[in-house]
Amino acid sequence: MSQVVDEVLAANVQYAQGFGKKSSLKSTPIRHIAILTCMDARLDPAKCAGLSEGDAHVIRNAGGRATDDVIRSLVISYKLLGTKEWFVIHHTDCGMCSITGDALSDLLNESLSPAEITPNGYRNTGSDPGSAEGYYIDWLTFKDESQCVVDDVTRIRHHPLVPHYITIYGYLYDVKTGRLLEVPAASEAGHPL
Amino acid sequence: MSQVVDEVLAANVQYAQGFGKKSSLKSTPIRHIAILTCMDARLDPAKCAGLSEGDAHVIRNAGGRATDDVIRSLVISYKLLGTKEWFVIHHTDCGMCSITGDALSDLLNESLSPAEITPNGYRNTGSDPGSAEGYYIDWLTFKDESQCVVDDVTRIRHHPLVPHYITIYGYLYDVKTGRLLEVPAASEAGHPL
Repeated sequence: MSQVVDEVLAANVQYAQGFGKKSSLKSTPIRHIAILTCMDARLDPAKCAGLSEGDAHVIRNAGGRATDDVIRSLVISYKLLGTKEWFVIHHTDCGMCSITGDALSDLLNESLSPAEITPNGYRNTGSDPGSAEGYYIDWLTFKDESQCVVDDVTRIRHHPLVPHYITIYGYLYDVKTGRLLEVPAASEAGHPL
Repeated sequence: MSQVVDEVLAANVQYAQGFGKKSSLKSTPIRHIAILTCMDARLDPAKCAGLSEGDAHVIRNAGGRATDDVIRSLVISYKLLGTKEWFVIHHTDCGMCSITGDALSDLLNESLSPAEITPNGYRNTGSDPGSAEGYYIDWLTFKDESQCVVDDVTRIRHHPLVPHYITIYGYLYDVKTGRLLEVPAASEAGHPL
């Protein structure tokens, strides 16, 4: 066990001691919402959107991108658990804008050690043998944060398993201020047809 | 704007007012950890594991399954942002154990409205035309919660882009008590080779 695991488990014991009425929560989200957002460590969807346990589904990946896996999750969210409003929340200063997929695959091909961010971009630092597997992965990096929200809302909106009555909103989270900023073009695409 | 959106935005304004030093957080997770868990509304990874903004990457989908999209996210997490310990956290009473993929695809083929849980399982309630698209999706439902943690840790462990030095732990979150319960067989699979 590492120190981090010890800390996590100690925090969990404390959390469980005050669990109280949360033990009777059902799987159906109370506020009928689902949030798709980035895995970024700075972003706590519950805190920044005022959500309590039981309120909302939260789906997260690198970039908050609308992948097939996200479609799978969102369909389960509305079809079996009744969510009606979905938020796609990307954020400023996203690492997915700072590198291209080809550059990442090149780094992985050279070494599996962590890369280091240098003033001129990323470089490899380790000596572990790399793998060419990265060239077969679409890393879903992007260039324009707001446009990417529009693209992801649009993909979800037009998926054949997403009903028209679901409302989808597009937002950018500003990591410098904690504010959620609407991306109007995305939310427009997300209104019920 | 719906009432839920108004509430979310009002909560966000309040959150941002107390943002303080969080404005200087960097994208590199301070505690060098990534958590893969389910989108379930009852589970708040930050609260149940004692995490603050900036501490950890959080990746979530239906079931907390180790999909290709999760591999993409985890590789970005360690390679570009330096995480070293990963937690795979599934939970008790998971909806992904209560239905089969075929049954879900059948429901979607009949109607895109939400299904209703009946004493004998799910049934459709709406009249929206359905779509056969669901038959082309692997819904990744499962039968045994602990075994599924083992399976997902194993998949991550053996992916060619996952270095041996990364430690992977398997846990089940008990939605009735708030406790994190280790799945020893999974964590064993996750120890550095």
